[in-house]
Amino acid sequence: MPRLRAEQRKQQLIGVAVQVFARGGYSGTTTAEIARAAGVTEPILYRHFKNKAELFVAIVHSVSRSTVEHFEELIAGETDPIRRVRKVCAAIPDHIRRHADEYHVLHGALTTSRDRKVVEVIKEHYAAMHNFFRQLVKHGQDAGAFRTKMDAKKAAWHLVMTGVGYATLSLNLDIIDRATITETIDEVLRGMKQ
Amino acid sequence: MPRLRAEQRKQQLIGVAVQVFARGGYSGTTTAEIARAAGVTEPILYRHFKNKAELFVAIVHSVSRSTVEHFEELIAGETDPIRRVRKVCAAIPDHIRRHADEYHVLHGALTTSRDRKVVEVIKEHYAAMHNFFRQLVKHGQDAGAFRTKMDAKKAAWHLVMTGVGYATLSLNLDIIDRATITETIDEVLRGMKQ
Repeated sequence: MPRLRAEQRKQQLIGVAVQVFARGGYSGTTTAEIARAAGVTEPILYRHFKNKAELFVAIVHSVSRSTVEHFEELIAGETDPIRRVRKVCAAIPDHIRRHADEYHVLHGALTTSRDRKVVEVIKEHYAAMHNFFRQLVKHGQDAGAFRTKMDAKKAAWHLVMTGVGYATLSLNLDIIDRATITETIDEVLRGMKQ
Repeated sequence: MPRLRAEQRKQQLIGVAVQVFARGGYSGTTTAEIARAAGVTEPILYRHFKNKAELFVAIVHSVSRSTVEHFEELIAGETDPIRRVRKVCAAIPDHIRRHADEYHVLHGALTTSRDRKVVEVIKEHYAAMHNFFRQLVKHGQDAGAFRTKMDAKKAAWHLVMTGVGYATLSLNLDIIDRATITETIDEVLRGMKQ
């Protein structure tokens, strides 16, 4: 295997770790397995990531960043608050499919790991999701589209909870169809509108 | 250990399995560990449950039944559709805490197991939850409280998704407070009302 520069090697290890965790679960996977799958020795892996939790942290930071960046792009040219919410929510199914392995690893660790670092970075992830939706709601309130009596923070948690429920049911059981997503977005918007 | 009659033994094994799965995860636990924790030999365990998946199926059937029964009791004396939804949704946090181990096992298997039997019984569980909420929505439509143009099946999935998101975030990260639950129920009801 050719020598990769540090940053490239790091990204390669993250990519391999996602796949190995997605197959075997975060808890059921060892750093030795990840090193082997990446074609490197464990000491090389440890040069970039001190332990398994650090690899997980890097995966979650990466998927959080991709998700927020994607959502920000979607609303960049859109000023209408209702259309903003619709655009972002309607894009979630495809976004989650594109990052299926990462979300699979995230949800698996969320429901099974009690490692302090793992729990902390998952909290960070949902705080980032919540922050994005809070701004979306706040923008809609400022523009007069959403009820100002509604607490933007709480409304954003409603969006995050629905999204997490959608993502886990959809990725693992495939039981939520497109029409249900559209209807759910309509209902959520009705609940927030003036 | 005194000899227990077959049904009592079965219930004892389910109870022990819930605790062992909750600690070690469904995938990371063996029937040998469950037998040991229950103070029986593996052949005795196998007399009641052919394999690990059958134990899991029994756990999920038990928690599905408890949940539907609890929800049915809550609405038994209540005819107002809005108050019915409020009562059931407001009771979810305590219900989930009371069955924390069972829901923990269920969510862990949902996000990590690909065993066909495991996936099938989890689908059954969510179908049972969905069926309950569909009837709740339908009752509200028949009583003129909820929009009849809304598809009761899709609205019920919105409730289930929000519930699953709440349950996973709440049990594992403890980041959803009571006021957020109340606000979310209000918004969901607003979305469904005439």
